[in-house]
Amino acid sequence: MEYKSYQENLLRYLLYIPKEDLKLTISRIHPEDILDALRIYDGDKKEIILKIPEEVLVDIIDQAEDEEKYELLSLMPDRKQKNIVEEMSSDELTDLLGSISNEEANSIIYKMDIDDAEEIRELLSYEKDSAGGIMATEFIAIREDMTVADSLKYLQKEAPNAETAYYLYVLNEEEKLRGVVSLRDLVVANFDREIKEIMNENTIKIPWDMDQEEVGNIFEKYGFVSMPVVDSSEKMLGIITADDIFEIMKEEYTEDMYLLAGLDEDEKIERTVGESVKNRLPWLFVNLITAILASVTVSLFEGTISRVVALATFMPIVAGMGGNAGTQTLTLIVRGIAMGELDMENTKKILLKEISIGILNGLAIGLTIGVLSFIWQKNIMFGIVIAIAMILNMLVAGISGYSVPLILKKMNIDPALASSVFVTTMTDVLGFFFFLGLATIFIEFL
Amino acid sequence: MEYKSYQENLLRYLLYIPKEDLKLTISRIHPEDILDALRIYDGDKKEIILKIPEEVLVDIIDQAEDEEKYELLSLMPDRKQKNIVEEMSSDELTDLLGSISNEEANSIIYKMDIDDAEEIRELLSYEKDSAGGIMATEFIAIREDMTVADSLKYLQKEAPNAETAYYLYVLNEEEKLRGVVSLRDLVVANFDREIKEIMNENTIKIPWDMDQEEVGNIFEKYGFVSMPVVDSSEKMLGIITADDIFEIMKEEYTEDMYLLAGLDEDEKIERTVGESVKNRLPWLFVNLITAILASVTVSLFEGTISRVVALATFMPIVAGMGGNAGTQTLTLIVRGIAMGELDMENTKKILLKEISIGILNGLAIGLTIGVLSFIWQKNIMFGIVIAIAMILNMLVAGISGYSVPLILKKMNIDPALASSVFVTTMTDVLGFFFFLGLATIFIEFL
Repeated sequence: MEYKSYQENLLRYLLYIPKEDLKLTISRIHPEDILDALRIYDGDKKEIILKIPEEVLVDIIDQAEDEEKYELLSLMPDRKQKNIVEEMSSDELTDLLGSISNEEANSIIYKMDIDDAEEIRELLSYEKDSAGGIMATEFIAIREDMTVADSLKYLQKEAPNAETAYYLYVLNEEEKLRGVVSLRDLVVANFDREIKEIMNENTIKIPWDMDQEEVGNIFEKYGFVSMPVVDSSEKMLGIITADDIFEIMKEEYTEDMYLLAGLDEDEKIERTVGESVKNRLPWLFVNLITAILASVTVSLFEGTISRVVALATFMPIVAGMGGNAGTQTLTLIVRGIAMGELDMENTKKILLKEISIGILNGLAIGLTIGVLSFIWQKNIMFGIVIAIAMILNMLVAGISGYSVPLILKKMNIDPALASSVFVTTMTDVLGFFFFLGLATIFIEFL
Repeated sequence: MEYKSYQENLLRYLLYIPKEDLKLTISRIHPEDILDALRIYDGDKKEIILKIPEEVLVDIIDQAEDEEKYELLSLMPDRKQKNIVEEMSSDELTDLLGSISNEEANSIIYKMDIDDAEEIRELLSYEKDSAGGIMATEFIAIREDMTVADSLKYLQKEAPNAETAYYLYVLNEEEKLRGVVSLRDLVVANFDREIKEIMNENTIKIPWDMDQEEVGNIFEKYGFVSMPVVDSSEKMLGIITADDIFEIMKEEYTEDMYLLAGLDEDEKIERTVGESVKNRLPWLFVNLITAILASVTVSLFEGTISRVVALATFMPIVAGMGGNAGTQTLTLIVRGIAMGELDMENTKKILLKEISIGILNGLAIGLTIGVLSFIWQKNIMFGIVIAIAMILNMLVAGISGYSVPLILKKMNIDPALASSVFVTTMTDVLGFFFFLGLATIFIEFL
């Protein structure tokens, strides 16, 4: 509530303040907040855009979501567009160009200086979700034979252009990464020491083709705020900073959660009905097929059901519990795979664990439902049949919840995407098979 | 594979290298990697611990997981423990003390200096998952009337003790936060300028009681590497850094994903069978109750089913599809709530969207299954009944998937925790009710 008022107030402020006055006060407003105000404005955003100084426009476009960047840029006169594109961070410009059509992208690139254009084309050549695709090329490079004093002088000149100045990267003549100096170490060192004496040579380097989720795992593991990206010959290409990683982590975690539920990774609250339907339907159809498989299994036992109709009443319990237990296991395994926590050593241990859990949970639930159904149906065999079916089903749930994600991972299919369909198919089909099959065998007693 | 070999090689290296030689080479090894090597060592970790210089032990314990910290600390002789505890980051020490019994914690605190002990007790008084609970108290504080030169001199003296020196915090006599200076700005400014001229007064401050997930959202939104934590009078208490946020984000996202599946937030791959069963069973029992509710619904129509046994065959389809569609919606809404993307403005729009999607998906799936079941059962009324039931069920799925998380949120219950149980109850119960109810009404035609 309070937050929203701030946005609305800021919007009103931006609309009514004269351009000259805004120049004086705008340094006190964070670009992200200006962005929020623009987002809730239904009128012509050009009114506001034309009042904002160019350096701030650069920051705003840097901060904006990929799809918004071009929309905002298009509101500006051509010459301003050119200036802004030149001042933007290379990684944000790459994101902008990657989010629009080739035609639109080329029209922007043609207006750039040859060197910048070449650099951008190179960045665009990297996979969008790889280290190369998310890095920025603006970093501060120094030589190891420079003194601390030289480096500080250089920093004073170059710093405004750099993506980050928390670290300075020490390169040799072939642009290979020799080491890293943190700004803190530079500031506390004696002026006449050489860089090679204070630099850290054992810096962790990110390969240009590493997947962004893995990059996020490394940042999370080592806790760096900035890491260098290198090519296969250790030549330094660019840097990735912590704020990129925040975005990536949010993206990757949301993606996994959506995939597990059968939403695709681009699902958003703001999507149109048509887009959402187009993306959710395929998943629903796949689930329809697995549901039909379960139905076919049940149809094999129609004879049994017609003789003991109560079996139909208890079917939802058998299917439901297997699905729930299977989902518990598969969620744990899918997450473990994503966080890199599963390896050759613990896989066997985990399988045995899930089998034990399946049996124990199966016994607990099976006993409970066995007793309850005995009371309800006044038939002890009924209770026994459903209890055994439940134990078997929970065992199947544990085993399939464990193996399906791992098998998919081995086949290079994203486990988050397909696991739940296969696991629930197995628990449904086998659950019904056990339950109705046992009922058929012992039908004389039911 | 390659990575594991590195750990094993490092372990062997640490085991066999003499203490004096390790002193010379250890600066080239990252503490996190030493930690990994210790984790895979089944022997007496003391062998390795006693060889490692104290400063590195501090880093290792800082990096270790909360539960590991005390285990590692206990391997060391008393006096070393005292030294290490004094050198640890305050936020990591707080985490360590928070993870052990009060007795063990007090025995550590008693050995500390009075000032440090008081500081730690204060940190321990904050909620574990709040800004106060995750912050560190080591930051660099300067006055606004200091010159750049003074500040740099001060930094040279203080920097080794600070959690981070990316930012210097400008406080007044009452320790209230007046502004922030980035190290980069300090380094590029003229030596004789005063801090008040170059500082940023409009810094975003984190309230001490803000929930850690919200803190993570702010870091992600604004992209800072370090942010100040203040009390209600804007007095500065400590700082939170980007690496804390990486950990928190991973924790929070994993937690949400686990909760949705019915695992509790502490579920881990390394847990014992007993612990896992203890934590998964309650959820399974809750699901058992909702499954029984669905069964009771079916039992009302046992008469109908005994006359048209094929209805039992098609029950899994009706229940399953409703559950899937409901899960799609609730996942989107739960995630939207967690990321702060739902507000008064878009909630109505989203409800209408989900209703439309439910109807459209229902029509598509309903038509498909209607035709398929007509072909299978050679009965057109059967196809019509199941088609209509499907459309209604998908509509219910959309509405409940939307409203249940929001209602839970309003009641201050974590939507991720309980939504799926309520949503699937509604889709199962109402799905069976529509399907079997319609079948009962039109039973003469089936």
